[in-house]
Amino acid sequence: MRFDVTILGSSSATPIFNRNPTAQILNVNERLFLIDCGEGTQQQLLRNGIKAQRINYIFISHLHGDHYLGLVGLLSSLHLNGRVKPIGIFGPPELKEILEIQFKYSQTELRYPIIFQATQTETPEVIFENNDIIVETILLEHRIPCTGFKFSQKKRLRKVIKEKVDSIGIPVDMIPLIKAGVDYKDKQGNVYPASELTTDPDEPRSYAYCSDTICNWCYLDQIKGVNTLYHESTFMHDMLQRAQDTYHTTALQAAEVALKAGAEQLLLGHFSARYRELDPLLEEAKAIFPNSRLALEGHTFDI
Amino acid sequence: MRFDVTILGSSSATPIFNRNPTAQILNVNERLFLIDCGEGTQQQLLRNGIKAQRINYIFISHLHGDHYLGLVGLLSSLHLNGRVKPIGIFGPPELKEILEIQFKYSQTELRYPIIFQATQTETPEVIFENNDIIVETILLEHRIPCTGFKFSQKKRLRKVIKEKVDSIGIPVDMIPLIKAGVDYKDKQGNVYPASELTTDPDEPRSYAYCSDTICNWCYLDQIKGVNTLYHESTFMHDMLQRAQDTYHTTALQAAEVALKAGAEQLLLGHFSARYRELDPLLEEAKAIFPNSRLALEGHTFDI
Repeated sequence: MRFDVTILGSSSATPIFNRNPTAQILNVNERLFLIDCGEGTQQQLLRNGIKAQRINYIFISHLHGDHYLGLVGLLSSLHLNGRVKPIGIFGPPELKEILEIQFKYSQTELRYPIIFQATQTETPEVIFENNDIIVETILLEHRIPCTGFKFSQKKRLRKVIKEKVDSIGIPVDMIPLIKAGVDYKDKQGNVYPASELTTDPDEPRSYAYCSDTICNWCYLDQIKGVNTLYHESTFMHDMLQRAQDTYHTTALQAAEVALKAGAEQLLLGHFSARYRELDPLLEEAKAIFPNSRLALEGHTFDI
Repeated sequence: MRFDVTILGSSSATPIFNRNPTAQILNVNERLFLIDCGEGTQQQLLRNGIKAQRINYIFISHLHGDHYLGLVGLLSSLHLNGRVKPIGIFGPPELKEILEIQFKYSQTELRYPIIFQATQTETPEVIFENNDIIVETILLEHRIPCTGFKFSQKKRLRKVIKEKVDSIGIPVDMIPLIKAGVDYKDKQGNVYPASELTTDPDEPRSYAYCSDTICNWCYLDQIKGVNTLYHESTFMHDMLQRAQDTYHTTALQAAEVALKAGAEQLLLGHFSARYRELDPLLEEAKAIFPNSRLALEGHTFDI
């Protein structure tokens, strides 16, 4: 099952050095989820050959412009390009008002419904679930209310061993039962234990998106054991005071979070405009957490 | 005196084929005016090497997203990059509310003042004037209230003939008077007529920006004699019905407007997403008005 994330933007606050503000596409079993939607996200989708109409759910972390200003344009284009199927948007409650006022004044009546679900920052909660994944909010601490998002694959059914199943001639409609652990009994009364017809399923994997936040450790429990952690690393650690003043994180801190969370892979992003070259941030993180990567635009990372 | 326009975006409605939504930079004697501000304008300014902080006035034609969605991001970046000097914004009254709500929810207190002046669509009016130009609104007819803008250079003072002035030894502080037409009299009582010390000034030039509008001819009087006309040409003329239904103009109609207005140069823009190749639109316009040009991104046109 495909489970990866494509970076559309990794700049903090102001776009610069050809870096765009934050947006990511999560591909879960060929269903696309958009995480944050900075200005120019629709252009970035085009540049990366990703069909915007395939997005059915959008998650907005907070209402700083570099995380949502591309949303009205994207929603308008979906409308103009003929969308009729609904889109789900998760984000701070005030986002609804921001969208409504702009559609009102542009006299835009969307042809498709927006299903808006407000997030809150009191307690983490499950906000979405389908056959493949569960999405929970992560409580972050920024200058304004902000949540991260944790995408966890569901535990999956056992995998059938095709050659065995074929050689025994098990009917197709029995397969789901065998995957679920039911033994197979043929017409002659022979019993084939499900455990011998199947192998263990892949372990469910998970992705945590943490941007923007001061490194307060409060969210550590929630992301423990996550496979891939995206964590903002706006500054290098020599700018720790500035990071704290602006409720951001340093690359070193992000690496410490990844280490303590027991993550397998760390994606660094939300780079300050002060850094033209990003390798120093990567090196700083790698010294603590070797499997650190730069969340560069256009790159896709398996989770 | 420099008087030119640089195209930052020329796509209608949805960005496509690497074309961005509408935005233009007018350079008037090294002062920058931004005309419309579609999504991604700040990125386009960066790509074209234009310093956003040099913009002191912004003119927004109407509240369809492809003409203003880049504004909050641009204003935020100016703030984050330390701007303190005021910025003037001209646009529909509701724009103020759209800006305010977004700065409220992002808890952004701009370090610089926004001087907002609401436009109206009852009657054309002069909305701005400095030493170099006068800006008037043009009443367009679109699906929602919309104005164009006409930028007219002021009539300028006569130009002194430097060699003559130097040879006579005219004091520097007399020059402005001579430019204004006052004759010079030296200590011996010799009179030098201003008409002999100066040549005629350059004729004032003008630029009319007409996007978006149905071709209703009502605005023709206002743009008569304009030197450079930017006119939307969303469709080709075989799509006339569609143009009229959506309150847009065809390339052929734009050329007819330029012809009847007696313009010297026509810039075509606001191209529909249906046209990957734009040469057919250009050819259609040129058949009526030979000095037609495509308003392509990154191109600068003398007015």
